[in-house]
Amino acid sequence: MTLDPAAPARTLGTVRVVGTGLLGTSAALALTLRGVDVVLQDVSPTAMAIARDLGAGRFPREDDDPAVVLVAAPPDVVAEVVAAELQRWPRAVVTDVASVKGGPLQTLRDKALRDGGLDLTRYVGSHPMAGRERSGPVGAQADLFAGRPWVVAATEEASAAAVATVRALALDCGAALVDMPAAEHDEAVALVSHAPQVAASLVAARLREAPDGAVGLAGQGLRDVTRIAASDPALWAQILAGNAAPVADVLESLRADLDDVIAALRALEQDPSALGARGALVRVIADGGAGRDRIPGKHGQAPTAYATVVVVVPDRVGELARLLADVGASGANLEDLRLEHSEGQPVALAEIDVLPAAAEQLEDALRERGWTVPR
Amino acid sequence: MTLDPAAPARTLGTVRVVGTGLLGTSAALALTLRGVDVVLQDVSPTAMAIARDLGAGRFPREDDDPAVVLVAAPPDVVAEVVAAELQRWPRAVVTDVASVKGGPLQTLRDKALRDGGLDLTRYVGSHPMAGRERSGPVGAQADLFAGRPWVVAATEEASAAAVATVRALALDCGAALVDMPAAEHDEAVALVSHAPQVAASLVAARLREAPDGAVGLAGQGLRDVTRIAASDPALWAQILAGNAAPVADVLESLRADLDDVIAALRALEQDPSALGARGALVRVIADGGAGRDRIPGKHGQAPTAYATVVVVVPDRVGELARLLADVGASGANLEDLRLEHSEGQPVALAEIDVLPAAAEQLEDALRERGWTVPR
Repeated sequence: MTLDPAAPARTLGTVRVVGTGLLGTSAALALTLRGVDVVLQDVSPTAMAIARDLGAGRFPREDDDPAVVLVAAPPDVVAEVVAAELQRWPRAVVTDVASVKGGPLQTLRDKALRDGGLDLTRYVGSHPMAGRERSGPVGAQADLFAGRPWVVAATEEASAAAVATVRALALDCGAALVDMPAAEHDEAVALVSHAPQVAASLVAARLREAPDGAVGLAGQGLRDVTRIAASDPALWAQILAGNAAPVADVLESLRADLDDVIAALRALEQDPSALGARGALVRVIADGGAGRDRIPGKHGQAPTAYATVVVVVPDRVGELARLLADVGASGANLEDLRLEHSEGQPVALAEIDVLPAAAEQLEDALRERGWTVPR
Repeated sequence: MTLDPAAPARTLGTVRVVGTGLLGTSAALALTLRGVDVVLQDVSPTAMAIARDLGAGRFPREDDDPAVVLVAAPPDVVAEVVAAELQRWPRAVVTDVASVKGGPLQTLRDKALRDGGLDLTRYVGSHPMAGRERSGPVGAQADLFAGRPWVVAATEEASAAAVATVRALALDCGAALVDMPAAEHDEAVALVSHAPQVAASLVAARLREAPDGAVGLAGQGLRDVTRIAASDPALWAQILAGNAAPVADVLESLRADLDDVIAALRALEQDPSALGARGALVRVIADGGAGRDRIPGKHGQAPTAYATVVVVVPDRVGELARLLADVGASGANLEDLRLEHSEGQPVALAEIDVLPAAAEQLEDALRERGWTVPR
């Protein structure tokens, strides 16, 4: 899954990236790295300039004739931008990377029926399942999509050539292709992304007016459950509104279980030996465990048979950064990293997960660079 | 907060640990490390033997006369075990570490009224906010409690000497003392631990019957939200049942917001421009962000609002060192540094945390020295 710049690009011709935020700039970096000619476009000249300075591509020219347009615009304007690009470049295949696929498609189809002149044989929506907490071009990474699922939502109208073009672009970004119709995609992301976002926000919202003493007892569990609650409200309102029915379906199913839990707790409040109440609680926690077990490992493949390399890291500023740089320089692909730090100890233990075949070489490389790697 | 074996123990006399699971054995290890005489007791001879072999203490003797008894038994039997220990050792102070404090206390008070002969001046319940995914004595660590909050829930009945004894024991385990009455404690953990556990389980439970394709799209957000869903159902049913009313209160408040979200989504399903619906969604996500902001930092201190200065660092040997030197020369006090390095990119991004007041000056100083600092 690693981006190998030496491999020839599958994408032929110029790629125009409209929207040089996190996703657009990351795709542009990956494509440029493969030698693809990438044109950058954004409503913000600053975002465009940063993307260019990061090496993501070039500014537009008069004689541009893109073969592919990648639209990475906010969800509420994506259909409009896709339509404009389809009309402006009559030979180009157009895709978008918005996190909801059904709504924009419906808007485009309505527009095609109404206005005519919108050639949907050249449109294939897509959605790379990647992101970071850091947004904008500054957060972009050439390997943001490496090994991550990239959904390609082919329509009935789309030409086989257009679908192949978008699939090639996803592969050139290092992603793992997932073919999935728009409706199925939207139900899936409601389940694995949109409803969990709502749940995390609802749990975190309870803390707003909590006593200081109570939030002072917070531990890692609460931090994990609520991490994604620190998200952009306006962007998320757009996403949820754009996928309203599937998200509501998931949340209604969740509410039915929540009602059961509340009923069981109230019954136990009245009578600590209330018949069936403990059973209802056991069932909900057990169901959660069963659901949790279905989540695949970090890169989408079957969970984990990684080897763990343990490194002693002095507790000084910059040491962890130096370690990460050295891991990168060794050529090993870091799958996961955990830091075990016991307070008051002058060192921490970094646990680095890599593919088993890479572990020994990584250990040798790190020892060579002066790190203590306990055997 | 640090465990310093050289510091003399505050705890005087023998400590009897009843229940050599994760918490009991960890406390025993910490106390033994300080030179305290620790006696281990468990219904499982195997758990007891493992704890002893780990160096957590010794087996009981005929002539034991403990000054303190630490009960680390499952929540549904903790009151019973505390009562038995109070009666068996008429001089000992008894504490427990169960995650719910009001219920066991009520049971003990009822029992004292009914049976007499139960001396609650010697009982002080407590709750160390620490844990690991690995349970049992094998998961025990001498520094499990280091720097973690340890709630001491003094009652009206408890003698000042008993309270002081339990506080001393918590300090000897390296914990940060938090004095909090039982009822307040139970409301706090309902908010920061029990309700989040239910929410995580409910989100994860939705995945049980999801199509493979859908769970294949899972990302880090879902993994974080549902991490604690992989918990022991029987244990959690006990905990939730033991704190029924406070957990139900939190979940009912959560359900009210959930109902608002579902109503907004259904309104948007009917009419994508439904009045007020997007506003309701924005509010819930924004409230979640505000709640999330209240969670203290990793080591329990107030969340320090550092400003982050981002600098583009060429991927060449010595550049990071030069950057750090330039940061130092600017006079800014570097609080933390992270390096974001994407494979195959010719640059890395250094994220430098400084006090907000220092950020602008640092950015100017770095630009002056030729660094690229994206605005």
